[in-house]
Amino acid sequence: MVFGFVNKDNMALLTDLYELTMAQVYFKEGLNKTAIFDFYTRPVSKRSFFINAGLEQLLYYLENIHFTDESLNYLRSTGLFEEEFLNYLKDFRFTGNIYAIDEGDILFPNEPIVQVEAPLIEAQIIETFLINTLQHPILVATKAMRCFIVAKGTVLVDFGLRRAHGTDAGMKAARSSFIGGFAGTSNVLAGKVYGIPIFGTMAHSFILAHKDEEKAFEAFAKQYPENTIFLVDTFDTVEGVKKAIKVAKKLGLKRFKGIRIDSGNLLELTKEARKILDENGFKEAKIIVSGGINEYKIKELLDNGAPIDGWGVGTELVVSADVPYLDCAYKLVEYDKEPVMKFSKGKVTLPFKKQVYRFYENGIFKKDIVCKYDEQMEGGKPLLKKYMENGKTIKKLPSLKEIQEKAIENIKSLPEEFKDITKTVHYIPEVSEVIQKTVEELKKEYLKKG
Amino acid sequence: MVFGFVNKDNMALLTDLYELTMAQVYFKEGLNKTAIFDFYTRPVSKRSFFINAGLEQLLYYLENIHFTDESLNYLRSTGLFEEEFLNYLKDFRFTGNIYAIDEGDILFPNEPIVQVEAPLIEAQIIETFLINTLQHPILVATKAMRCFIVAKGTVLVDFGLRRAHGTDAGMKAARSSFIGGFAGTSNVLAGKVYGIPIFGTMAHSFILAHKDEEKAFEAFAKQYPENTIFLVDTFDTVEGVKKAIKVAKKLGLKRFKGIRIDSGNLLELTKEARKILDENGFKEAKIIVSGGINEYKIKELLDNGAPIDGWGVGTELVVSADVPYLDCAYKLVEYDKEPVMKFSKGKVTLPFKKQVYRFYENGIFKKDIVCKYDEQMEGGKPLLKKYMENGKTIKKLPSLKEIQEKAIENIKSLPEEFKDITKTVHYIPEVSEVIQKTVEELKKEYLKKG
Repeated sequence: MVFGFVNKDNMALLTDLYELTMAQVYFKEGLNKTAIFDFYTRPVSKRSFFINAGLEQLLYYLENIHFTDESLNYLRSTGLFEEEFLNYLKDFRFTGNIYAIDEGDILFPNEPIVQVEAPLIEAQIIETFLINTLQHPILVATKAMRCFIVAKGTVLVDFGLRRAHGTDAGMKAARSSFIGGFAGTSNVLAGKVYGIPIFGTMAHSFILAHKDEEKAFEAFAKQYPENTIFLVDTFDTVEGVKKAIKVAKKLGLKRFKGIRIDSGNLLELTKEARKILDENGFKEAKIIVSGGINEYKIKELLDNGAPIDGWGVGTELVVSADVPYLDCAYKLVEYDKEPVMKFSKGKVTLPFKKQVYRFYENGIFKKDIVCKYDEQMEGGKPLLKKYMENGKTIKKLPSLKEIQEKAIENIKSLPEEFKDITKTVHYIPEVSEVIQKTVEELKKEYLKKG
Repeated sequence: MVFGFVNKDNMALLTDLYELTMAQVYFKEGLNKTAIFDFYTRPVSKRSFFINAGLEQLLYYLENIHFTDESLNYLRSTGLFEEEFLNYLKDFRFTGNIYAIDEGDILFPNEPIVQVEAPLIEAQIIETFLINTLQHPILVATKAMRCFIVAKGTVLVDFGLRRAHGTDAGMKAARSSFIGGFAGTSNVLAGKVYGIPIFGTMAHSFILAHKDEEKAFEAFAKQYPENTIFLVDTFDTVEGVKKAIKVAKKLGLKRFKGIRIDSGNLLELTKEARKILDENGFKEAKIIVSGGINEYKIKELLDNGAPIDGWGVGTELVVSADVPYLDCAYKLVEYDKEPVMKFSKGKVTLPFKKQVYRFYENGIFKKDIVCKYDEQMEGGKPLLKKYMENGKTIKKLPSLKEIQEKAIENIKSLPEEFKDITKTVHYIPEVSEVIQKTVEELKKEYLKKG
């Protein structure tokens, strides 16, 4: 019996086979000069911006990637690799440089999010894992931030672990939604590993196991008098609220943390619940809702005056249900100091090692310009920073809380139209004249050769 | 710097906080009689059936779950748990029974897929991980089987690792798509861990790094004369096909494995490519396509006569793009031998420990009946089998290949309307009279108490 956990020792094999077969050909040819690869995403509908996340995990991978004897034995068994190349892999380490936009920064389509500068073989071998590590965190951090924007100060908690696509997605969803402004997660391991605050209420099964709602409430509140959020919708929500109050009074609690409603008409039920709680002197008890919550429902409920204090956001957050994948890519843009580009229809890439400059006007985002790395763009703030040099991380990484604070600050500088979750602004950063000219020249050159 | 890998030692903490706080209350109350929980999925649009997958990983988890000192120290640090309960967790093992439908079997909504019979505390603590482990594999195996149905014998390969939601999803997607009829995966680690055949071609970056398409083709084909699939669409697809042929001839190859087209009008381009390959005597060279492939595109292309031999199916498979989550649940249905059910609006559960009987007519699926575990349904085949007893797996698990063969056999017994990917059959299994009667009685009882 096997689970198939990925770990530090086998993660080098978590790659597409062609990365390794191509690497062997490069190796045999001695084609291993410095390559520059861009990781970027193309535009998608329903997203006017993205929030960057996942960089720390990428740096961990790059610092630790190695091929164990067990991995090499497997590769040998495929019959696709020669001993000389397997020997090369035995000593393989990532020795390149990484330029990246900070986690928590706002991203737009077509601009490099991470730029890899490394010997071609290394830059090729890391491709698959790099995309895997970055895409899902960006999806979730972005979805979380869309929730944060419409939640207007109410509390958001990640309840999505059970519906995340596997164990790692559950971890990444907790971390990324925290970056996107969430207060915490229900995921205990994410609490331990990333230091994220953990939250929880109670389940319907807890009520049902006690047979009697009141008895269940009493048992929980006795154990956690300061910390109980009563789940009130197992049978009848309004009756459930009354029973929660009855139990709180019986136990002599002056206050309790709150109630959770997981089904039914949330607008009507929360209004009714608020009224009953207030009438009984429990004005501080919070109303939490869950069950199919997303940014659209949060906005609708709050716009209609639902007295909701907190949200358990699960499935739709962690799978990014309305945009479950990015049209992202990792493309060679420079090899041995020469610009490189691809001409496949609709999938044109921008050549050169690059920089992205962000411009503001009166503190509000105005535009991004994508240019060559050595171009100067006066008044612009360079977004790509050197995070890794010769395979070693050279920047002190911020704490997760600092990344979250940065993300929230960034959003303040975004024009309102970008923050309207009901519309999509199809913003594409400008490309510098130098790059544009090279694109034209390479096209001409290609057509001449063609 | 931290990645956050989940492993055998920390997986017990990959759970929602409330599972552990509820467990502490159960523990303090001594509420720990035998509970039965059902894992099942509610109906979703765009899916007429599901394929079961993920059971082996669930059994691994249940056999190995334990709380290390490090885990316990973290729980202690939250201030939510008493020493007495932490001591209980120190010796925690899963000691229950598992009844499950086989991997590769067809599933319908509302029938138990996995049934847990265990002391209440154990059954509660495993909830979150259980759902996480089963949902994504079922999604992917189902999506894969939909592709298999329309692929009509052409070859399907999982190319989705890079766009899967994290590392574990990449592993599960490879395993689950194989169950759903795929021939293999690009994921090398899945090849090693699960013994799945691995496949690969070459990337656009490989062509671009050589600057010259022909040189790139030649370098690869020299290394892998038997095993080269030329990626022909980096510049101009038709020219690319011609160059592949030129290189094959130059190297004196009588045959080569094939070409891959990743962009453009796949119907026109594959027809043109087939013609050129045939005219040049490379009738055995296969045509593989990739890029945004899903079951709908496979059907459309083959219906229109595209001469395609194989498909790299990536993103939309591994995230199950059109149905990125199941409305699945894990619900208490029996406690201490008494039937239990929940009355929340639209989320009614079926009480009792159950069995599912499947009926066929002339070898074709006719219906399922969900009944009490001890009811006899003559002529029906019971689907739930006892996989685990007292925490130990008691059934020899089939190989992945055997599961795949079973899944393909099962599909043959499914009426054609279920296999039409363009329509959804909203089939819901029957519920036995005994269960229906109990539901009515429990409702009455509840209303009386209310």
